[in-house]
Amino acid sequence: MSHPLRAPVAACAGLALALLLPAALRGATPAGEAPPKPLTGAQVLAASTAADWRALDPSNTLYLELPAGRVVIELAPLFAPHHVANVQALARGHYFDGLWIMRAQDNYVVQWGDPDGKKPVGAAHRTVGAEFERPLRGLSITRFPDPDTYAPDVGFVDTFPVAADAAIGRAWLVHCYGMVGAGRDNDVDSGGGTELYVVIGQAPRHLDRNVTLLGRVVSGMELLSVMPRGSGALGFYEHPEQRTPIKSLRLAADVPAAQRTELEVLRTDTPTFLAYAEARRSRHEEWFKVPAARLDVCNLPIPARPRGNGGAAK
Amino acid sequence: MSHPLRAPVAACAGLALALLLPAALRGATPAGEAPPKPLTGAQVLAASTAADWRALDPSNTLYLELPAGRVVIELAPLFAPHHVANVQALARGHYFDGLWIMRAQDNYVVQWGDPDGKKPVGAAHRTVGAEFERPLRGLSITRFPDPDTYAPDVGFVDTFPVAADAAIGRAWLVHCYGMVGAGRDNDVDSGGGTELYVVIGQAPRHLDRNVTLLGRVVSGMELLSVMPRGSGALGFYEHPEQRTPIKSLRLAADVPAAQRTELEVLRTDTPTFLAYAEARRSRHEEWFKVPAARLDVCNLPIPARPRGNGGAAK
Repeated sequence: MSHPLRAPVAACAGLALALLLPAALRGATPAGEAPPKPLTGAQVLAASTAADWRALDPSNTLYLELPAGRVVIELAPLFAPHHVANVQALARGHYFDGLWIMRAQDNYVVQWGDPDGKKPVGAAHRTVGAEFERPLRGLSITRFPDPDTYAPDVGFVDTFPVAADAAIGRAWLVHCYGMVGAGRDNDVDSGGGTELYVVIGQAPRHLDRNVTLLGRVVSGMELLSVMPRGSGALGFYEHPEQRTPIKSLRLAADVPAAQRTELEVLRTDTPTFLAYAEARRSRHEEWFKVPAARLDVCNLPIPARPRGNGGAAK
Repeated sequence: MSHPLRAPVAACAGLALALLLPAALRGATPAGEAPPKPLTGAQVLAASTAADWRALDPSNTLYLELPAGRVVIELAPLFAPHHVANVQALARGHYFDGLWIMRAQDNYVVQWGDPDGKKPVGAAHRTVGAEFERPLRGLSITRFPDPDTYAPDVGFVDTFPVAADAAIGRAWLVHCYGMVGAGRDNDVDSGGGTELYVVIGQAPRHLDRNVTLLGRVVSGMELLSVMPRGSGALGFYEHPEQRTPIKSLRLAADVPAAQRTELEVLRTDTPTFLAYAEARRSRHEEWFKVPAARLDVCNLPIPARPRGNGGAAK
């Protein structure tokens, strides 16, 4: 089955981007010179300015401290305000300290929490109502022109991958690699953040709209993705000694400033971001011979880098 | 941007599948009874017969022996005959024995071979011509009705995920999780199989048609995906002691029968496969509340199981 609309769509999108971009990002040259080579993603980032980046907000940033190091997670209160508030309360109550990474299912998720599900939640709630999706209204989405297998519209809101369906006026976070969600039982309202999972493989888009996503890993993903896979059903570890202990989970705002990991992330509401996405859509590095001219919303990890030093983006 | 064609396409596909499937796979009941619950993927597999499965061909199967165990790789001579023949020759010459896993880039690839690129290749070739794509003609594709971000058509040929473009009469293997390819330098003809990589993250579809894929991991993927990520550029290990040694890479046909891993894989040219894909497209397990009604070609790992015992599929 062919999709005859795609080529024109992509062509129009490319044109629109070219018109939108400032000359520096188009690689424009004075009249008479040969047209310049299109920029690579690295070149777009190298040409970015401080205004193209945004520092992480300590009050919406979690530090998951593992024996191997720190995982930095950015929370998404625009999409899951009650879950985010509950995870913040759990972190403030040191709920996760001494608990475990208890599940690692290959090409799917790594999950952590209380294997017995009985640890008191203190001032937090054991469960909160489902936040699988939200109204589309009020969101400013940087839309992708590319067709998506699963949703009518995809793109980014701030640094989060999102999908939307204008016909029903709804939007939701997308299960891309590194996205963090709240495990639940069969009851839709049985989650709440006491068990958290992170996507470690091909985007399990069938989970979209079926479970609450509440954030994404900004750095340290490589500490989670290498967890030995569990041999039990669903990748749960069969023996307690196989679990990896959690030293602590803290809100960055509750950590002394000197001990914070100061990161900034690429904003997605700028011409620089459009140029970056276009450079990833059609790669012009010498190695590439046939540019894809398409980009899956889960195939554009948002660059992050140490704050304030103009360091290389990861 | 909306994609108005999608809902009708999916609906038609569902109808076509329903008409194609035998009653047992539709869950049909005698007239007058309530319509049955649609089958889950596990139920479709449980109802499969021996004819729905195919044993791996030892002459097209590789065993990558790592300290942690065996990785089983199925080769794809239909798509990369020269690369497959060359890798078979390299395996017969014990080329990979004593070499290393030398690269692990998070959410991308794990790669193995000779870090110095100088080990003699014996009767094999150092490089063979690019096999990025092939003629569409002669292939029997089990097509997916779902829209794909990157290609006009996607589906499976045998147990391999493929994309195709009828307008140019070409088809190619798709970079899904677990697919194995031949690393190359900037010259398109600089690969050949002396360096092999496997996808360990979100499908890097921008690599499609830019590099030769020659197989896929059938079992043991969890031994590769947990490799510590390299801290050098592109995930290369910066220190030799960080590399994981390769004990050997052998063609299964060259291994004594008693030492083989006898696996069978789900055929993709059967009504059972269509039912299985449909069960993964719209999941009816109790946990799911909003069936996706779509399926990415990279979101359907082909089931494999021990041969001949009717054991549970992995």
